[in-house]
This record gives sequence, structure tokens and C-alpha cells, in this order.
Amino acid sequence: MGQSDKKLLDQINYPEDLKKISEDDLIQVCSELRQEIIEQVSNNPGHFGASLGVIELTVALHYVLNTPYDNLIWDVGHQAYGHKILTGRKDAFHTNRQYKGISGFPNRQESEYDAFTVGHSSTSISAALGMAVAAQLKGETDRKTVAVIGDGSMTAGLAFEGLNNAACNNADLLVILNDNNMAIDPNTGGLNDYLLDITTSQTYNKVKNDVWRILGKFNRINPNTQKLFQKVENGIKTILLKQSNLFEALNFRYFGPVDGHDVNHMVKVLNDLQKIPGPKILHCITKKGKGFKQAEIDQTYWHAPGKFDKETGEIIQSKNNGPQPPKFQDVFGESLVELAKSNDKIVGITPAMPTGSSMNMLMEAMPERAFDVGIAEQHAVTFSGGLAAQGKIPFCAIYSSFMQRAYDQVIHDVALQGVNVVFCLDRGGLVGADGATHHGVYDLAFMRCIPNLTIAAPLNEIELRNLMFTAQQENMGAFSIRYPRGKGRNIDWKKDFEILPPGKGQKLKDGEDLAILSIGAIGTEAMDAIEELEKEGMSIAHYDMRYLKPIDEDLLHEVFAKHKQIITLEDGCIVGGLGSAVLEFMSDHGYQSSIKRLGVPDKWVEQGTQQELYKECGYDKNGIIATVQQVLAKQSS
Amino acid sequence: MGQSDKKLLDQINYPEDLKKISEDDLIQVCSELRQEIIEQVSNNPGHFGASLGVIELTVALHYVLNTPYDNLIWDVGHQAYGHKILTGRKDAFHTNRQYKGISGFPNRQESEYDAFTVGHSSTSISAALGMAVAAQLKGETDRKTVAVIGDGSMTAGLAFEGLNNAACNNADLLVILNDNNMAIDPNTGGLNDYLLDITTSQTYNKVKNDVWRILGKFNRINPNTQKLFQKVENGIKTILLKQSNLFEALNFRYFGPVDGHDVNHMVKVLNDLQKIPGPKILHCITKKGKGFKQAEIDQTYWHAPGKFDKETGEIIQSKNNGPQPPKFQDVFGESLVELAKSNDKIVGITPAMPTGSSMNMLMEAMPERAFDVGIAEQHAVTFSGGLAAQGKIPFCAIYSSFMQRAYDQVIHDVALQGVNVVFCLDRGGLVGADGATHHGVYDLAFMRCIPNLTIAAPLNEIELRNLMFTAQQENMGAFSIRYPRGKGRNIDWKKDFEILPPGKGQKLKDGEDLAILSIGAIGTEAMDAIEELEKEGMSIAHYDMRYLKPIDEDLLHEVFAKHKQIITLEDGCIVGGLGSAVLEFMSDHGYQSSIKRLGVPDKWVEQGTQQELYKECGYDKNGIIATVQQVLAKQSS
Repeated sequence: MGQSDKKLLDQINYPEDLKKISEDDLIQVCSELRQEIIEQVSNNPGHFGASLGVIELTVALHYVLNTPYDNLIWDVGHQAYGHKILTGRKDAFHTNRQYKGISGFPNRQESEYDAFTVGHSSTSISAALGMAVAAQLKGETDRKTVAVIGDGSMTAGLAFEGLNNAACNNADLLVILNDNNMAIDPNTGGLNDYLLDITTSQTYNKVKNDVWRILGKFNRINPNTQKLFQKVENGIKTILLKQSNLFEALNFRYFGPVDGHDVNHMVKVLNDLQKIPGPKILHCITKKGKGFKQAEIDQTYWHAPGKFDKETGEIIQSKNNGPQPPKFQDVFGESLVELAKSNDKIVGITPAMPTGSSMNMLMEAMPERAFDVGIAEQHAVTFSGGLAAQGKIPFCAIYSSFMQRAYDQVIHDVALQGVNVVFCLDRGGLVGADGATHHGVYDLAFMRCIPNLTIAAPLNEIELRNLMFTAQQENMGAFSIRYPRGKGRNIDWKKDFEILPPGKGQKLKDGEDLAILSIGAIGTEAMDAIEELEKEGMSIAHYDMRYLKPIDEDLLHEVFAKHKQIITLEDGCIVGGLGSAVLEFMSDHGYQSSIKRLGVPDKWVEQGTQQELYKECGYDKNGIIATVQQVLAKQSS
Repeated sequence: MGQSDKKLLDQINYPEDLKKISEDDLIQVCSELRQEIIEQVSNNPGHFGASLGVIELTVALHYVLNTPYDNLIWDVGHQAYGHKILTGRKDAFHTNRQYKGISGFPNRQESEYDAFTVGHSSTSISAALGMAVAAQLKGETDRKTVAVIGDGSMTAGLAFEGLNNAACNNADLLVILNDNNMAIDPNTGGLNDYLLDITTSQTYNKVKNDVWRILGKFNRINPNTQKLFQKVENGIKTILLKQSNLFEALNFRYFGPVDGHDVNHMVKVLNDLQKIPGPKILHCITKKGKGFKQAEIDQTYWHAPGKFDKETGEIIQSKNNGPQPPKFQDVFGESLVELAKSNDKIVGITPAMPTGSSMNMLMEAMPERAFDVGIAEQHAVTFSGGLAAQGKIPFCAIYSSFMQRAYDQVIHDVALQGVNVVFCLDRGGLVGADGATHHGVYDLAFMRCIPNLTIAAPLNEIELRNLMFTAQQENMGAFSIRYPRGKGRNIDWKKDFEILPPGKGQKLKDGEDLAILSIGAIGTEAMDAIEELEKEGMSIAHYDMRYLKPIDEDLLHEVFAKHKQIITLEDGCIVGGLGSAVLEFMSDHGYQSSIKRLGVPDKWVEQGTQQELYKECGYDKNGIIATVQQVLAKQSS
């Protein structure tokens, strides 16, 4: 179906246009909107299944609500593509998640229809409650507030806190629970049994998907698969069972479940609910990937596929020229399995990121020693603290930006305990297309002020392996390793393990004119820059600090004794990170060199490719070259 | 009753001694233990009501469990005085909460009987689950793990996350819900009705206490009191109702409720539960302050009273010589009410700290505009973000160390939104007797790296008022004000409001030899030091930076143009705070002065008076004097 076939969607740019469509034609609008998303995302990759699952809900909400006066808050927001297309961004949608394009998530700065900027999960109920209470205080009795939250997001503490508190207020709040993993079976009995059946089959489908995908990936049958299957199934089932009971406990008025793919029924229900004041919950059953066969079947893979053929569903593989270096996350995953084989104290913990962090490798190899605790970063860290207090060595894998949610637990339940927990902070640094909410750029600064915490960032795959090996030695205490999203450069990375002593960096090369001190994989940009600069006759020293804390004081004495011009480089905020640590050292030891700090400036950085963003922040290869040239020009002037 | 009358307690130093006592004598042990705590705390102030409420539970647990092999985790830990006395610390207990004495909370470094270091709420279930899973993995089938958690702590997201996940594991975990606000009425009917009755009357008692105290405090009848009464009552009732439903949803085995003051019955129940594997919850009803009449009646006041007469219960007032300066928290509370009267956008939010933060003043004056959301820091911040997104100006009061728990929300749900939320971080800096878990020493560092956030710390009461006045001007964005625990020095503080422009500090005095740059109320220590140093003929400049971010660049240019010797001073960690900000400025602008940073060194600081701890960290008056002398001696050498 080409663009010209979208007769109805062509007429809709804003919800006011949608409201002119007759109810009878809403099914056609949904069909066209779905097709639009399939076409766009097949060509310009992004999140996929989640938006397909809420097409009818989206159309119904904008048909019924008076947005933007009414507040509509999408939890996480990766399901809001339909919302974006219906609220003034149809023509811009081909720039979704691109540099200078529109954000992949709702964003207050982008549109007045985006009531709240989102990205991290489970914020919607609390934010919506705030908006509903504000409307109440202002006497805006006609103003509606709606939060749309998925069943997965409901397991996080923040969502529970919001629900708990919402029931205390009589504000006009509608929470739509987007229960998106299975179809409704309308023939089942009473509400509780009904939900029970729903959640059980839902679990079954989800787990089946996961396990099938893992089996496919490793291309072999593992004897532990059956155990894993049971364990994950039981875990998810328990969580969902609790939710069904939770509804009764909410003191919300509960409505549902309803078929979230029946747009006309949704319009009717939402219209009815408009008339009911106070806090209420609508339980809405949807199917992730709805309307695109492959996405309905393997929901995890199609959560965010790459490019694909919109007709056949075939994934368009990027052409590989020979063997590729692995993703850092896979170096983590494979190395963890290796280490766990020889050290039975090791366990793995991830809060709902088994695929994203590659913790699924340990989950498959040693299911009894790997724990996916759901979207619950705080618990993941404190649980790790408890395990470590009894002599285990937990490797707790969390994306850098999500670690912000467990900050108190890192301080209070791990570092202060003096126990050996290894934090593996994936997606450290600028992450690319996910944008401002997801960049992992604060961790070096917010971890550095915590006492008794070792902080490392590997230059490459081999250092990552060796840092993991080092971190699981006896009495290493709290140990954080951060590494970026994506791939490094080494194909031959699986070397024998080697200890990298904490507090020791390395001199990568000598040089006379200036020294670059880098931490982490961004150091490879410096290596490229230096290669080019030396062709022009400059002589640049390069030090890989490796440990931010304890920082290598011997190496720094060497650097300051020799160099008057120093550039620090980190894939993180320049406020409080490596650059500041080097300044503190310089001040404490009475050195006086000139230091230029490269890193993320003190502002929000939006989406783009990682390279585009490194460039924007001035620390891609060319940015480093320019900085070196400026520093040296200034010196000689 | 004197020390010599404690016939049984005299024989008990460790749980092994307790186990030699006959069951018939346990009531006497409880009585003696209770008397011991009353005697000790009446003379050496600390937490009171909570420990009295769990005397029987404590004795029963140590009688039945095989500690320290079995893991016993106290949530928060202010109720663990009996536990400390029974586990080797009876003779040290007179040093409770004192400098170099024992900690007021369980502490792994202090005793092997303290399975987990605690202080912040709601960590116990997650930590205990980790320990129980570790025991399971090690095949220690005889090893028990028990978490004792209060009903208040159960509202926090972390506790929910722990409960959610615990049900997924079959680890041997006992959660004791210490429901400590009322006595049991054993005549009520079935379980659900029973809990419903309990929670309702519990609420009633709690609220009645609060309201009576407020009435007493303000010594007048307020027309809004009745409304407040109803609102708080409804809120708490709702939360507790949910808990009663939650039990059913846990997939834990549920036991109770039992009378937590019947020690013999508790021994029997705990013995029985030892035989039941897997996760289980025991609902235990206790009375806070049990056995000390005044503490039973006004539970909030007696949570942590000052010195009192152990016989009469009369509070021993410290002698006042004329009018006293107010606590900073009361300057906040009173000023907020003043501001709210003239700016109807202002609302107040506190997560369960109405008394501690003095938010209760707004709750009393304008109950419809003040929100106590329970122990739920994450929700408090995101809820504030939602209110602000709709034009309200929330003043969100949270202790600095508890703000660690809402770090992601500050970044993601406030600063990134670009909305005007005012964070009032009470207990910023070293807090004194509560020790390492409660010191608010990281906030300046962890807030400084967040873009679009204004960070201020007042020198005194008047600046605090004026910063609050400034923060509620239009379009101020996210704004953080941190101030210390305790009192300042100004009696006459209620001056007319005045704007303190963001990014502008002040020169307090000129000087020739050296400049001190301070932020916050710790600047008064510098003022004292300078007074003394100038008597000795030195000439010291003093700048009150006031804003950490944006930092006053004009002022810094002035300082660096004039001074080669600079001391920075902050009541916070020296890693990443004001000192680092000044170094960054110096580096960015090519100045080369010598900077000595004073602040909390990169280690855990234990308990003591604030003055003792300032001294330990080298930034009390004498520490500052010594540092100035060293710096100037070094310069002239």
C-alpha cells in the first residue's frame, strides 16, 4: 500500500482532524496508521511492536480526549509512534530517532501534545497524578488526565508508589493498563479467574518466545533449557498474579478487561469513563506487534528490529565483510559464563535486560545462578548487596542511565557494606538514537563521589574481559565497570584472562608535544586522531587511565612531570568526571599544567548516531584533532 | 530499678547466654531489657519508641534463631537497640550514637550479628532475599534468614520490588511485618475484616496523635484542622487497606496477626515457622513505645525524644538563655507558608517527613496544597514533576541522603522536563548522631553534573528565605536549595523577601593574604576562623558562593585575578563538589592559583556531634585556621 492509498490518514494532521472522521471509518484510520508505521519503521528502524499494539488505543484516545488540554502520558513512550503521527508529526516522522529529527519518545519540548518527556519506565502514574492534582487545584474540572502504562512497567517500585499515592487523592485520573502480551479469550468466567487465565497464558507465550529465540541463537539444545523455562515462567506468573490482586487493592475503580484492538468499543468505553470522576483503571488487552505477523509471533525480537521488508517481514541484514568484532555486551555475556564456570561464587543479576545486556547467556548456561528480577533496578542492587554479604560475587548488569534509579542502593546497600558486587554498566556514554533520556553520561560523575567504590572503564573488549576477571578476585569490594553501546574493534578478543590491578592505567604511547588522558573505549577516537596528527609531524602521548577511581597517581605524576599541555577525554559529562579528577590531582600535588577537558558538555544531548553525537560534543576523531591543534597553537602563540 | 536489679540481663551478653534462660523467665528478661533501654536512652538520647516496641520480638528472635549463622536484618534499624544489647554491646551501649561509640543502627563492621548495615528504609526484604538465595545456592538448608520491616517502610517502591521478586524464589525467607501502631483486638472476626479493623483504628490513633501535637504546638485552633484530619486519615487508611490486600497477593505463606508483646507465644510461633520452608510472612502487631506510658500515647514525639526523666517521663529541657535562633527546617516551614499565601501556584510535597522537614506547617495552614506521600521519594519527585508540568511550583522537601533514592527522577522527571520544581534538601552536610547512612554529603556532587538545574546553599536563615523566594519566581526551572540539620545563628531572621539572582554570590569581606570560598552555612565556621586569624594579623578574604550552579563567574574572575592562595570550603564530599567546580573554572579560564579544598574526605564518616565531625574532617573553625596557617606558611617557605 503506497502513501497515496491512505485516503483518511492523508486528511489527518492533528486530533481535530481525526475528530471529523465518522466512527464507522475509525477502523480504516487504524489500518492506515498501522500501515504507515510499518512502512516508516521498515525503512528507518526504531521501536516497532509496541506502537503496533496500541494503534486502536491511540486512535480512540485522541478521538475521545481533548488533547492537548487533556493530559495524555505514555509510559516509557516507545509505543507512541501512532500518537506522534496523529499530533502534527506525520511529515516529520521519517526523521524519527535521527540526528536533528524528532525524538523516538514523547518530548515536552517537541510538542504540546507530549504532556511529559519520557524514556525510562514507570514514571507515568506519578507524573499523571501530579497533573491531575494540579487540574483539581486549579478548578479545571473538565480537564482529563490519562496515563498509559504497560504490564512490564508495573513491577517497578515507582509505579507502585504512584498507585499507592493516587488512591489517597480524589483527582481525576485514568490509568490504562496496557496488558500487551496476548489476545483476549472472551469465553472465560469471572473477573479473577479471567485475569488469572490471561496472565498465565500471557506468561506462557512470552516465555515460549524467549526460549525459542535463545535456542535459535545458540543453535543447540541445552539440558538446562527446560529448567530455565520453568523458572522464568513461574517468576512472571507470580508477578502477574499479584497484579490481578493488586487491582482489587487499588481503591481505584476498576474497569475491564477490554479488547484494545476494538477501536469502536474503546471509543465507547473511554467516553463512558470520561463521565466518571476520581481515580480509575482500565485494563486493556492488546497484542504487541498486532497486524504484522512476524512481530506478533516473536515479540521480543520485533520490539525494535532493524530494517526489514515491509511486505515479507524479512530482516534486511547489513552486509558483513568477513568476521565482525562483537558487541561489548556480548563480550560481557560470554566472559561472565567463562568466569562463572571457574568461580562458583559468581551469580548474575539483571533488572529486565537479559537480552540487552547479554545476561541471557548466563541464564541459559547456569539458570540457577542468573536472576532477571524484572524492571526493578533498586531491588537488583540491594539484592546483589544481600548476596554479596553472604559471600557471593554478583555481577549486576544495568544500563548506565537506568543505574540512576538505584543510586541510593549503590551507596547504601553495596559500597557502605564493603561487599564485593560487580556493577556492569552497559550503554555508558552517548547511546545514539534513544536520545537524552537514555544517554549514560552521568555515571562517571555520580559514581566518583562514592567512597570505597572502584570505577573502571575498558578501552576495548580485552580490557573489559580482564576487568571482569579482576573484579571477581577476593576482597575487591564494590567494583563498577562501564562500557559503551555497540561494538569495539577487536575480532580476536578472547585472550587468556589477566589481572588489571586496580588503580593502574597504561601508557599507550609516548609523545612530546601534548598528552591525551582518556578513559574507556572512546580512547580509540583519540588513537585515530593521534595517528593523523603524527602524520602532520606532531608528537602526542596517550594514556589509557582505565581506572577512574582509584586513579593511577604514578601515571599522573609521570604525565604532569613531563607535560604542560594535557587533554582529558571521556564519553561522559565533563562536570565531575575524569577531567575533574585530573584537576583535583593536579591541585592536590601542586602541578600547574594546562588542561583541556573533552566530554559531554553541560546540556542535554538529543538523538543521533553515536558518531554524530561525538562530533556534536567535540570528541570524535576530528574534534580531538581540532582541539589538539588549538591547544598547541595557543601554546606557541 | 537500678542496674543491680537486672538479675537475668546481667547474665546475658550474647544470644548463647539468652538461650540458657528458661522460657518462663523470658518475660522477666524482656522487662529488664526494656528498663535498660529506658535508662540508657533517658540519659543518652536516641531513638526510643521503636526499640521499646520490639523488645519481645527481639528476645524471641534471638532465643529461637541461631544468630549470627542465621541472618537477621532489621529494616531502618532504629529499633535494634535491644538487639545490640543482646549481641555483645551491652557494656558499650552507653556510647550509642556518640563519637567513636557504637552506631545507632546495625552495622556490619561493628558486629557479626548485624547481617546488613542499615539506616535508610525498606532495604531489608531485598537484602534478606539475597542472603536467603545465597544460602540456598550454598546448600545451607539449615540457615534461616529473617527480615523485620515496619508497616511504614512497606510503602516504598524498593520494598514492593523485593516482595515481588521474593515470591519468584523458593528461598527460605521469613519477613516479619512489624505493624507497630496499635494493640490487637482479639475479639474481631475473620482475617480480612480483622486487618481492616486494625488498620482503621491504627490510622485513627496515629492521626489523632499528630493532630493533637500540632494543635499543642501552635497553641490555637485552626479552622482547617478538621479537614487535615480527614485527609490524612483517609490517605493512611487507603495505604494500609492496600497492604491487607497485598498479603493475599504475595504468594508468600501468610501467618498472623500475632501479638508481638507475648514473648512466649512469639517463641512458639517462630519455632513453628522455622520448620516451614520457602518465603513466608508473619504479621506481628506491636505498640511503639510499649511499656513507657508517655511514649505509647504520643508516639511521634517519643520516636526520638531528647533527655527525659526515666521515672516521670518529663522532658528535660535544655536551659534557654533568652531567644534562640530557629532550626533551618523551621525557617523553611514558616517561609513556605508565607510564600504560599502570596503565590497560589506553590504546593508542598514531602515523602513521610512532615515533622522532620517542618512541611507540617504548610499541611496545617493549607492542607489542600500540602502532600505527604509516604515513604516514596521517587514518587515525591516525579509527582512534583507532573504538578510542575501543569504550572504548579512544587516545593519538594527531602533529606539530602534520602534524595539519593530519587536521583533518576530528579534528572529524568524534573530537570529534563525543564519545569520549575524547588528541591529543599534538608540535612545537607554532616548530620551528626545518625552517622554514615544519613550524612547528606554527596548531593552537591551528584546534583552538579545534572544540566539545567540551579543548585544553591544558603549561608544563613535569611539567605534560605530569600533563595526560596527566588526559586518561586517565574521560569526558574529546576532549583535545589540545601541546608543543614540544626540551627543557624540569627534570631532576627524574618526579614522582607529579596531576590538572590541565580549565579551570583557575594563577597563577605576583603582580604589580602588568601581567599576562602565557601558554600552554605558552614561558611560561618570560616567567619569564626577569619576573626581569629585577623587578630593574629592575617588578612583573609571571604566569599559566600551561594550558588554552586551556575557558579558566579564574575566573582571567580575577581578572586583569581587577586588571589594566588585559595581555600574552598563545603559541608560535603570534596570529590566533585564546590572545590572541583572552582578547579574546573580555573582550568577553563587559564588561571593558576593554588587551591586547597576543604570538605568531607573520600571515606565514610561515622557518628558524632556535627562539631566533632567537622573537626574530624578538618573544617571546623580550628581546622580552617590550621589550614590557612599551613597554606600561608608553605607559600612563604
